[in-house]
Amino acid sequence: MRILVINSGSSSIKFQLIVMPSAEAICEGMVERVGLEDAKIHFHSAQKEFEKVIPVRDHKEGLKTIASYLMDPDFGVVKSADEIDVVGHRVVHGGSTFSGTTVINEAVKDKIRALFALAPLHNPPNLEGILVSEEVFPDAKQIAVFDTAFHQTIPVEAFKYAIPNRFLDEDGIRVYGFHGTSHKYVSERAMEYLGRTSSKIITIHLGNGCSMTAIKDGQSIDHTLGFSPMNGLIMGTRSGDIDASIIFYLVNSLGYSLDEVNRILQKESGMLGLTGYSDLRDIQREAQDGNNTCQLALKMYAYRIQKFIGAYAAAMNGLDAIVFTAGVGENSDVLRSLVCENMDFLGISIDQQKNEVRSGELREINTISSKVKVLIIPTNEELEIARQAFDLME
Amino acid sequence: MRILVINSGSSSIKFQLIVMPSAEAICEGMVERVGLEDAKIHFHSAQKEFEKVIPVRDHKEGLKTIASYLMDPDFGVVKSADEIDVVGHRVVHGGSTFSGTTVINEAVKDKIRALFALAPLHNPPNLEGILVSEEVFPDAKQIAVFDTAFHQTIPVEAFKYAIPNRFLDEDGIRVYGFHGTSHKYVSERAMEYLGRTSSKIITIHLGNGCSMTAIKDGQSIDHTLGFSPMNGLIMGTRSGDIDASIIFYLVNSLGYSLDEVNRILQKESGMLGLTGYSDLRDIQREAQDGNNTCQLALKMYAYRIQKFIGAYAAAMNGLDAIVFTAGVGENSDVLRSLVCENMDFLGISIDQQKNEVRSGELREINTISSKVKVLIIPTNEELEIARQAFDLME
Repeated sequence: MRILVINSGSSSIKFQLIVMPSAEAICEGMVERVGLEDAKIHFHSAQKEFEKVIPVRDHKEGLKTIASYLMDPDFGVVKSADEIDVVGHRVVHGGSTFSGTTVINEAVKDKIRALFALAPLHNPPNLEGILVSEEVFPDAKQIAVFDTAFHQTIPVEAFKYAIPNRFLDEDGIRVYGFHGTSHKYVSERAMEYLGRTSSKIITIHLGNGCSMTAIKDGQSIDHTLGFSPMNGLIMGTRSGDIDASIIFYLVNSLGYSLDEVNRILQKESGMLGLTGYSDLRDIQREAQDGNNTCQLALKMYAYRIQKFIGAYAAAMNGLDAIVFTAGVGENSDVLRSLVCENMDFLGISIDQQKNEVRSGELREINTISSKVKVLIIPTNEELEIARQAFDLME
Repeated sequence: MRILVINSGSSSIKFQLIVMPSAEAICEGMVERVGLEDAKIHFHSAQKEFEKVIPVRDHKEGLKTIASYLMDPDFGVVKSADEIDVVGHRVVHGGSTFSGTTVINEAVKDKIRALFALAPLHNPPNLEGILVSEEVFPDAKQIAVFDTAFHQTIPVEAFKYAIPNRFLDEDGIRVYGFHGTSHKYVSERAMEYLGRTSSKIITIHLGNGCSMTAIKDGQSIDHTLGFSPMNGLIMGTRSGDIDASIIFYLVNSLGYSLDEVNRILQKESGMLGLTGYSDLRDIQREAQDGNNTCQLALKMYAYRIQKFIGAYAAAMNGLDAIVFTAGVGENSDVLRSLVCENMDFLGISIDQQKNEVRSGELREINTISSKVKVLIIPTNEELEIARQAFDLME
């Protein structure tokens, strides 16, 4: 079964063509700067890899270009559109409606549309990707995989905020959780590795966005991102948790507009606000060169992760494994080292030599005597989407 | 040495006359509804206890009434104003300036005034109490004890928010911490009880306001209240931690004004917003009678405390004792039981029989085999203020 996985963002479309059940990715790529004259398209298959700058007016044109490349007589990987059996769409917000992967019909599209207000940056391009895909691949089954779905098992005492009940009952204000596809994927790999589903695992997804999930017996029971993907851990440009009173103070005492504050917290805070850099590699390099501000920012970033590890170990009353994943989690030994420092009370201790080994594979970096397994597991959201789509079709 | 402790709030003045070093409280009381025709004054000494409703126009009149009662020829406890050696004032916000108790002079008053913007509800009446007290007790030393002072040892990685640096450098936006006098008092009693200052203690202050402090070797190293006394734990009417994006959503999508949102989060949220009751005794009674909403609210309240216990155990890389204090912490066995449930991974286990014993004394309620001591320690902020004032005068 050929499954085309589509991740349609506000100005980009990522794609991957995966054959299931072998899980072989036969082609992948990305269109960046959708809507501009100098959009960039990257295409990569076993036969050919190239990058081109061409005008891509909108998502429709972007997806049509991807389709034409996939079917190119010269370097394509399928002969015609009908060789794509399934298109699996990443959809960020499934609200409280979708606790699993679903075949897309009119009702599903309506619901994704109804959730625009909760995910204004993500759900509109996600739906756009679906609509265009229905046109371009009319014979394929269209399937939606929601970022929030994995977190629908979070119990009410963890997903509810301590604000008047009407905000949950009437307005749907609650913890939804995000990065669910990634947390699900790496936690399942971790359980396979541990050899059991009965387990207490904390998955730590550190990319541009950052989040952690407490996963008990395979189910998400708590998560750092809440109503939106803004709180919890310190991120590239997002503040993560702050005292809400700061917002009132910035507006009422310092004269900022509420929109300015929102922009500051989303786009100018986090590691960027603390250091001037949003890429952790730059910050690490600076820290190594003796830049105190960067050293402090790394300490803050790691300290907050440490506190959530403690919090989630308490929430699960135990801890079998922590899993580092995504760009920073998979690649930054410095960060992993800071996070695991002085955590032996919780049973965490890492082997520095193992921590420094670079590899694209699942690996264990704890010491032999560490009670808690410390794992690095490369995430693969596209493969997870393909798996879930495949399972649904079976 | 006779020390009059004054806690001057927006519409109330609490007082206690304490003889040091014996720590004997010879008189205590409170003026409520300052500014109204039907203000209520409560006076309590060994000789006499009474309550009166009289007009009290302002703080000056309130404090003068207190002074006249203290010196009343019939039931008073001192002969004249000059028998008061020291007046110890509770001041909520000492900013980053005051890391300890200080003798009040013009510069100190200016600084308390300069911090009005950071504590608009508290510092103005605190300063008012000082000004009136200087007039009424001109011969006494006036001393300020700051709620924030104990938390000045919190390291920068814990007190700094992940927002642009200028907000700390220029605007003083950081974690200040509150309830410091209470956390200091009970942690010192805990260390005496444990027989050592080298210790890892979490103090849990649960009253109308709620907060927790991680205290390592006698020093506050992290705390749940931050820039203002609004975040962290779920409180009587305050939400505690929420995803900041909810504020933007309430304003931009649901049409609330920012002031309304502020009021909702401060006055209509927390246990009140979840149950319709702000007094935990009502909520417990309802929960016992089978009210699901109240049962859930208690679970949420306890769950958040559990997570902070885990977080702070991680922050200190260990845990010797947790301390429950203040109204709810000292009196609610139900709540303590919920907090300590399923926490054996962290070494916490309580003896239900000990937990249910009522007493006004320091007591240990953990099981014999519990690795972590679980203590109930009645807080006494007035005595702590008197102690600190006395130590400064010595």
